[in-house]
Amino acid sequence: MKSISGNSTVKEITPGGLKASVGCEVEINACVHKTGRLGGAKLVLLRTGRYVIQSVCAKDFEGDTITEGAYICARGIVKDEPRAPYGIEIELKSTKTLSLPSSEYPLRVSNRVLESTLETNLAHRSVSLRHPLARAVFRISDSVKHGFEEYLRNEGFVNVRTPEIIRPTGERNMLPLRYFDKDAVLSRSPQLYLQMSVGFFDRVFESAAVFRAEKHNSARHLCEYEELDLAMGYIRSLEDIMQLLTALLRHIAETVSRECKHETELLGTDLPQITDIPSVTFREALDILGKDSTQADLDPTDADRLCRYASEKYGSELIFVTHFPPDKRPFYIKDSTDGFTESFDLLFRGMKIASGGQNTHSYTELCAKAERSGINTKAIQPYLDAHKYGLPPHGSASMGLERFVMKLCGLENIREARLFPRDMHILD
Amino acid sequence: MKSISGNSTVKEITPGGLKASVGCEVEINACVHKTGRLGGAKLVLLRTGRYVIQSVCAKDFEGDTITEGAYICARGIVKDEPRAPYGIEIELKSTKTLSLPSSEYPLRVSNRVLESTLETNLAHRSVSLRHPLARAVFRISDSVKHGFEEYLRNEGFVNVRTPEIIRPTGERNMLPLRYFDKDAVLSRSPQLYLQMSVGFFDRVFESAAVFRAEKHNSARHLCEYEELDLAMGYIRSLEDIMQLLTALLRHIAETVSRECKHETELLGTDLPQITDIPSVTFREALDILGKDSTQADLDPTDADRLCRYASEKYGSELIFVTHFPPDKRPFYIKDSTDGFTESFDLLFRGMKIASGGQNTHSYTELCAKAERSGINTKAIQPYLDAHKYGLPPHGSASMGLERFVMKLCGLENIREARLFPRDMHILD
Repeated sequence: MKSISGNSTVKEITPGGLKASVGCEVEINACVHKTGRLGGAKLVLLRTGRYVIQSVCAKDFEGDTITEGAYICARGIVKDEPRAPYGIEIELKSTKTLSLPSSEYPLRVSNRVLESTLETNLAHRSVSLRHPLARAVFRISDSVKHGFEEYLRNEGFVNVRTPEIIRPTGERNMLPLRYFDKDAVLSRSPQLYLQMSVGFFDRVFESAAVFRAEKHNSARHLCEYEELDLAMGYIRSLEDIMQLLTALLRHIAETVSRECKHETELLGTDLPQITDIPSVTFREALDILGKDSTQADLDPTDADRLCRYASEKYGSELIFVTHFPPDKRPFYIKDSTDGFTESFDLLFRGMKIASGGQNTHSYTELCAKAERSGINTKAIQPYLDAHKYGLPPHGSASMGLERFVMKLCGLENIREARLFPRDMHILD
Repeated sequence: MKSISGNSTVKEITPGGLKASVGCEVEINACVHKTGRLGGAKLVLLRTGRYVIQSVCAKDFEGDTITEGAYICARGIVKDEPRAPYGIEIELKSTKTLSLPSSEYPLRVSNRVLESTLETNLAHRSVSLRHPLARAVFRISDSVKHGFEEYLRNEGFVNVRTPEIIRPTGERNMLPLRYFDKDAVLSRSPQLYLQMSVGFFDRVFESAAVFRAEKHNSARHLCEYEELDLAMGYIRSLEDIMQLLTALLRHIAETVSRECKHETELLGTDLPQITDIPSVTFREALDILGKDSTQADLDPTDADRLCRYASEKYGSELIFVTHFPPDKRPFYIKDSTDGFTESFDLLFRGMKIASGGQNTHSYTELCAKAERSGINTKAIQPYLDAHKYGLPPHGSASMGLERFVMKLCGLENIREARLFPRDMHILD
């Protein structure tokens, strides 16, 4: 019998920790990112899980041959070195090889920028992500999610997990699967389950995997992506959800700024300053765009122009558009006056990143709306039942994580914001 | 144009907040959980998203008729009342109905215990979850996840999101789907992707949806459930992972204790005191059980008996069993001496709740192991490639969230630990 105390876990190495150890000997586990010469000495760039730390072999260095791509345990003295990253350098005394690659990298990961095409980088995803710029995106993505969860938990929201396998609702672009003896599809959104959950938790959120059979290869679409969703009960109007989303995004930007200073500097990421977000109605938006009122939704060019308008006129990188016609909105969105709906889109840097609204809480209205929009009401009976037995007035919002991160980091293709992307061609 | 400041979000009502408002008038949004008589007054139990708060109509009460199941906005004066839950009572001055149910509840949600069968409760899930005991489980589940994420983030782990749609690997019990013109399956575990991610992040975790086509109706299995997974690079041995898991579980228990005092009291949940966890090898375990050494794994009865042994002999509700034979272990687990593997299971209150081990980081060894175990190596080529280009020594662990919560809360069926469970019969 042994006894596991949980008291001897291995701590992470950080530049701050090294800086505090100047003059001391340290042990550091890392991958050999690059070797070269610096002055008269052998230069070894050490890639940890987050940083690339400069080291040079000491005159009395004793250790294994240092190969690029090898994982090593290095020992050395930390020195002040203002010209090195983070102002420190390690003078290596010895190294021990922990793991050697069987093959050279197919990509030049130690170059300042990965020069290979996106297609090549995706074909060697576990290697291209070893590039400091490629992986930095996912620290930021993690931080966005952390900010999302932290803010909502503090506001009394419960993090739930809802099903991804659901009955076919008759909507298009769903991925079908066979579930024992039944036909099923993969969920496009956790929204119906979140709204049901408002009946017992008032406030819920989920970061859900969602699926769409996108039969085209746009730079803005994925077949499997992550949606940050929330639903809230007892709202007085659409505006309560927009207020919440504004405060939430402000907290997310602050979280990324605090947690990912290293990555935002690496990528040159410009975080948005979120103060007041301007909001125009869909009808006002069409006026601004000089378009006629027969249009039922905004197209990508409209989004781009409205963002430029918000930036020039109000100094905001974000703009809400509210009260869309019902045609392109989910069936559960509440009607407002004059044939519009209690809905909104949030645009950021030329792209829609979130949408939401106030939902109908009337059972009879909801059933009528579902039937009108051609939904298979049998497939969503439990959702309709939740309304039959009563739900408070409620609203919801959802944000596409990869789209937001793409815009935040200034990426050109959404695939760069997904660790292992799936599209109609890629399944590896 | 309007302007959304994000400064007027609606705050959650808590007993602590009410206690601090004794003598003041408050506004509270809630569902009418139960009505009755208390002394000479009309009693109204108000169910918020977390609590049930006692209120009585004041003599000068003016408001709508108060119906059970209605969602209302109530105004009243907070009074000290030692006999009421949380020591407070609201003297209602007025109420406004926000939403009325179209139908009475099919279950007796206001009874102290839901007396209907599990089958009935699941058939009316959005109603049965309105019962304070049923929903309390999911506040605890959220808190377990929060503790898991918080601890690992503090230790430098990155939260990643890996694909759920994967190529068929030849393993059994996978749910098949058609992905455009390709055959695909739903993932049983995010482990392979997490191990690949060790190459660029060193330490990663994910709370992943996982899928198994369980063709039976046991109280311990679901077809769609949540797995808390982690992988860590640069481990020196199996024990580093077990140390981490012990510290992690201790933090989770502390998080639940801090965040869910209300729910653990409601459910009478006995949280484990995690100090040292005893650890025996599989061979020692068979000795303890008096079983012969031809057995390749522990069965549920063994797990139960080993837990009783750990409790009696070491006063621990948890016990590690290590070094299993390779037969029932994942192909990637590293071999140890004498035909065993660097693997472990963690048992808690008679059930396996987690497993893990040190993984092979040698490319050639990994390929040989994959072929030997009948895996379609083409389907996992990107995983094998990550090893070809080098990974540090690494290990991993995974824990079934619903199983852990089931044991934590003393539930009899795992379906009670899943908000909207899926099994071979239920797809609603």
